[in-house]
Amino acid sequence: MIRNLWKNTWARRALVVLVGLLIWFTPVPWGLQPEAWQLFTIFITAILAVLLDALSIFTASLLAMVLAVLAGVMTTEKAFSGFSEDFMLLILSAFLVSKGVVESGLGKRIAFVLIRRFGYSTLNLGYCIVATDALLGPAIPSNTARSGVLYPIVLALCLDTGSNPDDGTHQRSGSYLMMVSIASLTVSSALWLTAMAANPIAAGMGAQYGVQMDFMHWLLVSSLPSLLAMVALPYILYRLSPPEATATPEAPLAAQKALKEMGPLSNKEKIMAATFVGMVALWGVAGLLHISMAIVAFLGLAVMLLFNIISIASLRRDGGDALETFIWFAIMYVMSSALNELGFMSTLGKQIAGQMQGLSWPQAYVLLILIYVLIHYLFVSQTAQLLALFGVFLEVGVNAQVPVALMAYMLAFATNYFAAMTPQASSANVMFAGSGYLTQQEMYRNGAIITVANFVIYMICTPWVLWMGG
Amino acid sequence: MIRNLWKNTWARRALVVLVGLLIWFTPVPWGLQPEAWQLFTIFITAILAVLLDALSIFTASLLAMVLAVLAGVMTTEKAFSGFSEDFMLLILSAFLVSKGVVESGLGKRIAFVLIRRFGYSTLNLGYCIVATDALLGPAIPSNTARSGVLYPIVLALCLDTGSNPDDGTHQRSGSYLMMVSIASLTVSSALWLTAMAANPIAAGMGAQYGVQMDFMHWLLVSSLPSLLAMVALPYILYRLSPPEATATPEAPLAAQKALKEMGPLSNKEKIMAATFVGMVALWGVAGLLHISMAIVAFLGLAVMLLFNIISIASLRRDGGDALETFIWFAIMYVMSSALNELGFMSTLGKQIAGQMQGLSWPQAYVLLILIYVLIHYLFVSQTAQLLALFGVFLEVGVNAQVPVALMAYMLAFATNYFAAMTPQASSANVMFAGSGYLTQQEMYRNGAIITVANFVIYMICTPWVLWMGG
Repeated sequence: MIRNLWKNTWARRALVVLVGLLIWFTPVPWGLQPEAWQLFTIFITAILAVLLDALSIFTASLLAMVLAVLAGVMTTEKAFSGFSEDFMLLILSAFLVSKGVVESGLGKRIAFVLIRRFGYSTLNLGYCIVATDALLGPAIPSNTARSGVLYPIVLALCLDTGSNPDDGTHQRSGSYLMMVSIASLTVSSALWLTAMAANPIAAGMGAQYGVQMDFMHWLLVSSLPSLLAMVALPYILYRLSPPEATATPEAPLAAQKALKEMGPLSNKEKIMAATFVGMVALWGVAGLLHISMAIVAFLGLAVMLLFNIISIASLRRDGGDALETFIWFAIMYVMSSALNELGFMSTLGKQIAGQMQGLSWPQAYVLLILIYVLIHYLFVSQTAQLLALFGVFLEVGVNAQVPVALMAYMLAFATNYFAAMTPQASSANVMFAGSGYLTQQEMYRNGAIITVANFVIYMICTPWVLWMGG
Repeated sequence: MIRNLWKNTWARRALVVLVGLLIWFTPVPWGLQPEAWQLFTIFITAILAVLLDALSIFTASLLAMVLAVLAGVMTTEKAFSGFSEDFMLLILSAFLVSKGVVESGLGKRIAFVLIRRFGYSTLNLGYCIVATDALLGPAIPSNTARSGVLYPIVLALCLDTGSNPDDGTHQRSGSYLMMVSIASLTVSSALWLTAMAANPIAAGMGAQYGVQMDFMHWLLVSSLPSLLAMVALPYILYRLSPPEATATPEAPLAAQKALKEMGPLSNKEKIMAATFVGMVALWGVAGLLHISMAIVAFLGLAVMLLFNIISIASLRRDGGDALETFIWFAIMYVMSSALNELGFMSTLGKQIAGQMQGLSWPQAYVLLILIYVLIHYLFVSQTAQLLALFGVFLEVGVNAQVPVALMAYMLAFATNYFAAMTPQASSANVMFAGSGYLTQQEMYRNGAIITVANFVIYMICTPWVLWMGG
């Protein structure tokens, strides 16, 4: 009977409301402002609703925003501020650009070339994505922008290996490849100092404690755990969340044939390729030139429209997924950031730090990193967590006698590798989450698997980090 | 040969670039800041490109934004600020809500009821829209929100009179009814003090000059010209931009039959109707309760998603048009507002005022109103123009001996009736502009017709306004 009740969406919704009310009416702990506690309640209840499949993430976000505003714990201005955030518009524009890569035929061609070379198994294609991403890392200093480059290629790979959410074949190869991409981005970001926007901030904070975290040092320290993770993650996902298509010996031949049929590069493909390369190049130097990454992507989109690589009609027809993703992510991001601004996060961090007294440094070290990772369930931005908690956790670690370089590097790596945890855990996930290949439940489940694997791998490499980082 | 060249999009684009360069390199007039002149150049060139069909409004907006940012005349932050504007998100959410009205079948039913009663000619349906809009005026104190109520009903009317942009039948009735809606909103907004957000601001400014502009006074003064316009506009559009379907004597019978087939209200329709009525009621009191109109619309959308009146899948499938409209309008709005902030608009206003010396008051009066209306080609918000220029023009008018009540009321009416001028002239137009029924050229042409007609009608009523307003 309980199982039948569980199958009823409204029963699950009632349960979520019940839990929400319980948290709401719990006495406010730790001397928090009541607004902080109420906003936390709304936020965590919305995430619970998504986890229990009581609401889609879109509906949950909308309701959470409306509730928070009507309850007076968030201003309307704050609630809407996410829609004009630079990286939010980067996601939106990159999402639209990806449609051009697919529509022009260029995505198909790149996919076929990759399949011809590596396509005899889906696992191989997974490694192919990881390698591409890692090589792009130093050239594209933003994991969100890099996800914008990867996404259209991965999407084409999925479609051209016969996997399409519209006809129910998303499990064939697509769910797996999309999830590998999310996993891959966590590691490529940890590998290079310049592969994620928050890394240099971590390096700056580390420097205040005398830890050397320049480009080469970072690469050296990060290389072993990151390479291990790059090898392990596609295989772990392959075992624990296998694609329906595994060995596909016929695929390279079919790709070979399809490439022949496609003939030489069309004009559209050439223009698309030039635009894409131009965008990547501009993204690489955007920081130096103080140009917004989103402006670069909008420029690319405008060029594609000018040359009719995508049409307004197709944007109007196919832009709905980009819109849906843009809205829920902007809302989730703002709620997490408001929670942070109300002091919830730092209070939580200090409470945890208070529990560390009397532990040996290895105990404190493992616990601190573990908690730092787990808290990311509440954060909708890697940078926000870094800014809110990196300093607190580093300080607590140092006080507990954890070697400072170890602590600084491990917190910095964690800030990257916990990014697969939830769909909203990183802006780099959002396009893959919006692809239609992955359900919310799959993303939470596999996100947890990836995060545990990463945590274990990086922890095992503690001696290496101690040795190289010291 | 020139005609053939004209048919070539790239030739027209080259012409636009040429004109843009000419304006850019014109010596900066009136002691303006160079940035103001450059931003003006980019903005006006983008509008020219749309007018000449060299670019879609979406592409033109994107390019203008990117150029303005790269040229350093607008910050990235400013460029993106439109995306989090309250009324911008009201348009976006109302656009999505409208899909639910149509999908639930409620829109169809309302349309059939209207067609059964008034549908023997398309002109009649036009009057039907005007009457509905005028009656909703005092209840919905925002023309943007009111456009969100009208739009789904008008869309259903178009579809159910056999007019659909997807199969090329948009001219049958749709283009006409969409344009009538845009025209209607200009007049319903001028009719009631509370039907448009900027009207009370005008009343406040008028009060500083001792002009009484309370609810009843406003209604009295506005009634004659507004009623004349309500009668004239649908007929003028019917003559100058006729629908393909005119007399449709069979339509009411067909609607009668269709209603019979639909049977009683379905649950979905009932929930949709309750949600819709609830939204309208909340919009009516939103100002009193200090709730954002957009939050109300997002709440309505969330309720519709909760009860599965629209699904996430259908949002992802059909949300592209809302996204396209949201992006270009946010950009256009921000560019116009940046132009205003750089002092371009007020300098222009003062230059014009300087030319008024030596004119009799009736001459000055007609000229001032005419110029106030024409300048709206540069504005992407009625409120922004009111804030920037109402005061300047009122002061100049008073100095030129124009009776102050006449001047104040006429400027206030003009702020409403010039709203049909361009697709971006009012946020109330934007959903209709994004409906797919109207080309940019049609909107500019018919927008000019509506504005001229309104100008003439309100001007003819000058004696009435003098008598009642004094």
